[in-house]
Amino acid sequence: MNYKIALIRGDGIGPEVVGEAVKVLDTVGKKFGHTFTYEDVLLGGCATDAVGKSYPDGTAEKCKACDAVLLGAVGGPKWGSDKPAEQRPETALLAIRKDLGLYANLRPASLRPAMADACPLKKETAEKGIDLMMVRELTGGIYFGQREKYQTEDRGMECADRMAYSEKEIERIGRRAFELARLRRKKVSSVDKANVLETSRLWRSVMHRLAEEYSDVAYEDVLVDNCAMQLVRDPSQFDVVVTENMFGDILSDEASMVTGSIGLLPSASIGDTAPGLYEPIHGSAPDIAGQDKANPIATILSVAMMFRYSFHLAAEADAVEAAVDAVLAEGWRTADIAEPGVTPIGTRQMGELICKKI
Amino acid sequence: MNYKIALIRGDGIGPEVVGEAVKVLDTVGKKFGHTFTYEDVLLGGCATDAVGKSYPDGTAEKCKACDAVLLGAVGGPKWGSDKPAEQRPETALLAIRKDLGLYANLRPASLRPAMADACPLKKETAEKGIDLMMVRELTGGIYFGQREKYQTEDRGMECADRMAYSEKEIERIGRRAFELARLRRKKVSSVDKANVLETSRLWRSVMHRLAEEYSDVAYEDVLVDNCAMQLVRDPSQFDVVVTENMFGDILSDEASMVTGSIGLLPSASIGDTAPGLYEPIHGSAPDIAGQDKANPIATILSVAMMFRYSFHLAAEADAVEAAVDAVLAEGWRTADIAEPGVTPIGTRQMGELICKKI
Ligand SMILES: CC(C)[C@H](C(=O)O)[C@@H](O)C(=O)O
Ligand SMILES: CC(C)[C@H](C(=O)O)[C@@H](O)C(=O)O
Repeated sequence: MNYKIALIRGDGIGPEVVGEAVKVLDTVGKKFGHTFTYEDVLLGGCATDAVGKSYPDGTAEKCKACDAVLLGAVGGPKWGSDKPAEQRPETALLAIRKDLGLYANLRPASLRPAMADACPLKKETAEKGIDLMMVRELTGGIYFGQREKYQTEDRGMECADRMAYSEKEIERIGRRAFELARLRRKKVSSVDKANVLETSRLWRSVMHRLAEEYSDVAYEDVLVDNCAMQLVRDPSQFDVVVTENMFGDILSDEASMVTGSIGLLPSASIGDTAPGLYEPIHGSAPDIAGQDKANPIATILSVAMMFRYSFHLAAEADAVEAAVDAVLAEGWRTADIAEPGVTPIGTRQMGELICKKI
Repeated sequence: MNYKIALIRGDGIGPEVVGEAVKVLDTVGKKFGHTFTYEDVLLGGCATDAVGKSYPDGTAEKCKACDAVLLGAVGGPKWGSDKPAEQRPETALLAIRKDLGLYANLRPASLRPAMADACPLKKETAEKGIDLMMVRELTGGIYFGQREKYQTEDRGMECADRMAYSEKEIERIGRRAFELARLRRKKVSSVDKANVLETSRLWRSVMHRLAEEYSDVAYEDVLVDNCAMQLVRDPSQFDVVVTENMFGDILSDEASMVTGSIGLLPSASIGDTAPGLYEPIHGSAPDIAGQDKANPIATILSVAMMFRYSFHLAAEADAVEAAVDAVLAEGWRTADIAEPGVTPIGTRQMGELICKKI
């Protein structure tokens, strides 16, 4: 098969980690008989520098002409909050999510066997294992609601953000969560704040309806404050966790940190039709950019997710994940994950070692 | 001095833990020469059972006639989300906060020396110590914004919640945070989501203005998703953390769990004039209610906060905290915090032991 992949190399270490992921793609292509072709797409701070806008005109169209999008990392202090909105990298991220209809953000938080020591939790807790999938709604809620800013008589300036959700939006993300749970340990934890928010009460009622329909999947409601606690107390209790955009932003980052392996975690943002977008969850780390120090594993594992969720190539996904685990099991580490006493290897060497194991 | 204290004993284990806290109040009164008188106030599930409303008419007035309010715990499965709003305990909590103008929620998250082993984090991290104060805005934001619910043509039902903040609201909570930091390690971390929310951008601009004014206090902005990670990675980096209502709900519970001592943590909710409200952060634990099993320490430490923040009785507050630490150091434990092999003591015995140390 032929697949066309849009590459958003982005800022900081983005180009380096995407470079290694492309090597992995080509290796898999050779081994399994696929052809991957690439189309570079400019987005983020580098786009601001080149054309004055972080989200250049035509970006969505270029991506839509591809089968999937691979993104390295965007952003950096150079394009901070003092810049106008259209020059800021996060504006581009939000726009591309919306324009490609990427309403489901899949954020696996798992402890790879070789990395158990990196887990910040006590050994007893880490040994129970962590393998959860956060499913974050990505194109609705307070991220995309109406903004207000006005002067008041007695309270100074006042601002407002609106959080809205429709049944339709909730149902489609809910279905994704239940479908994913069926392929995993068959448990969905739906996170809301139904004791306070109207949107959460609607969220909960839709989820309850779906829970009846997917009666083979265990279901529970968890309040967002409680979820933030449970992720620290015992993350092994969770399988699929589904929640709205803002809660998902907070909880998926918390869950990632709980694994201790931020440098290793991939993500997928998918919709119903348009190409899915795959990216590491780590940032652009401008301080180590261009020094062959970055860890390419999260981007490489994002390629595995691309195989699984966009191309339905399960064997290819398994091969990439197994290769990563094999290299880690042999003790190879980039600087970010090297235990004291271990000599770290560079970005390129890590990429090559993984390719060799495929 | 004479102090009048409203007692909201509440539901589940509430009455038992408040009972022990009253013993502590009386002991301190005798030792330091104060008189505490009490006024019982009905609120929560027990109020619903008695008068059909979780927040009976006149509650705020009764509390305002007192110098401080001590609350045990409210809520329980009996008064769940299937009940009309006016019968649900959380409605009462939100109403009393608003009616008493309790805009600042102080949530210390600290690891008491004797309890270091309970910390769910790795030993190396726990040993660095955790001693932070979450300052959560408590009467604004999405908790109290306009709610909408309407039928759409193509998206089913749709709901919305509005998050609003004014400069005035932000400034008063910000000042509290900076003032508190001056009495502590002189660092304020302000948490927002300024890369997405208009309210957060206003929040940040007000905080920056205050940071200039309080130039003796170190200041940093932290994005909410990053804060959720940092609390797990290295909570010792924080001193005072200030944030809006919803973020504060999530992060203060996360921070509490990170200490591993939920059963020990107090809280204070204060305004500018009305009586402050003091309560343990744990819930009503209906499963162990009435069995002399509950841990009264969090409620007793809430009394210490009452001394400190409402009555400005620092020596009395220190005496209570020292007594708790002394009892814990001797190895006494209620069931919730007993290490394997330790025979737990009951609610009343714990209360008496603490009184004896005062
Ligand atoms: C950059 C920011 C807008 C973004 C978000 O909050 O969605 C980021 O934190 C993420 O999670 O991808
Ligand atoms: C019961 C609920 C409304 C409340 C809140 O979210 O404020 C609780 O979680 C708390 O933090 O006191």
